[in-house]
Amino acid sequence: MKKDKNSTRDKFNKDSKEGLVIINTGNGKGKTTAALGLALRAAGHDMKVLILQFIKSGRVSGEAKVITERLRPLVDIEQLGKGFIRFKNGKPDPTGEQIKNARDSFKYASDKIESNKYDLIVLDEINNLVDYGMLKVEEVAEIIKNRPKGICLVLTGRNASPELIDIADTVTEMKEIKHVFRKGIKARKGIEY
Amino acid sequence: MKKDKNSTRDKFNKDSKEGLVIINTGNGKGKTTAALGLALRAAGHDMKVLILQFIKSGRVSGEAKVITERLRPLVDIEQLGKGFIRFKNGKPDPTGEQIKNARDSFKYASDKIESNKYDLIVLDEINNLVDYGMLKVEEVAEIIKNRPKGICLVLTGRNASPELIDIADTVTEMKEIKHVFRKGIKARKGIEY
Repeated sequence: MKKDKNSTRDKFNKDSKEGLVIINTGNGKGKTTAALGLALRAAGHDMKVLILQFIKSGRVSGEAKVITERLRPLVDIEQLGKGFIRFKNGKPDPTGEQIKNARDSFKYASDKIESNKYDLIVLDEINNLVDYGMLKVEEVAEIIKNRPKGICLVLTGRNASPELIDIADTVTEMKEIKHVFRKGIKARKGIEY
Repeated sequence: MKKDKNSTRDKFNKDSKEGLVIINTGNGKGKTTAALGLALRAAGHDMKVLILQFIKSGRVSGEAKVITERLRPLVDIEQLGKGFIRFKNGKPDPTGEQIKNARDSFKYASDKIESNKYDLIVLDEINNLVDYGMLKVEEVAEIIKNRPKGICLVLTGRNASPELIDIADTVTEMKEIKHVFRKGIKARKGIEY
């Protein structure tokens, strides 16, 4: 394969001009961290990466701090969300602000994808918003299908929709076999966030 | 909880003095990348991280490049391995050099763990070496059990041994639901390595 020094996107997709669509789903750990690991790996090949977090809000996470301090401008991260969505009688019960925020964040992400300025965009926890009925699966599918060809997308979150799994290239279920939370230990800085 | 500015290890284990043992296993993607993501997250909290890769050899990976260039001295990465282990008649058939290397690498990792200089150590693909019979599960279990209390260990690789799962705190199976390789596309720079 000929090397094109002027195109990082070409390097990224050396065997195909089409960027991959990757989904990390399941009830286990590792959905977001695997996306962060991919971002790190891609940055190591001088690719331009954007991580958009759809649920996480302002709380300073380890990943946001180190990316901002050490990995810019190769990798950028933005916490677009308004925090965890509460449940009521077993059903998601987002606030009005969260519903509006989900739509605004999706519009923002769509613009970033269409800008064609990135090689890899992580849509962190977007699966949850679709699962909760806060985003329509059709509109997410449409953005994926119509993306500029070279862009790789990573979608994370529980209960990925079958329609999105159908159009993805690589889908991994992170399945919880055993979790320390079960033993009554709280979320730990540096591991959980 | 009181904040102890002098101890990053204390921050790391704010709810317990004992570091977690995390296993990422399964046939799907994301075992190593989730460990890389945890490393990134931990670095964001000023923890000291060491990533030891037991099978990968010199080929420059995206993660090794970006970690070396941007994340030192918080995160360090060493590729200790001698490349993928071949199979013969469905059984692992490591070279003599690979067998010796596995033992040497394990000794090296044990010394690093015992040095108590790190908050998080990733033992990348060590599960495979146990699965292939190149390391004894008892010796790996012993090192884990006798580690300095504060250290968090992440073990990755397929077919994690039940004995190791038993002593781990968090175990995730990365399960392949769908993989682009199936469609005949080769490993891609920035995604697979």
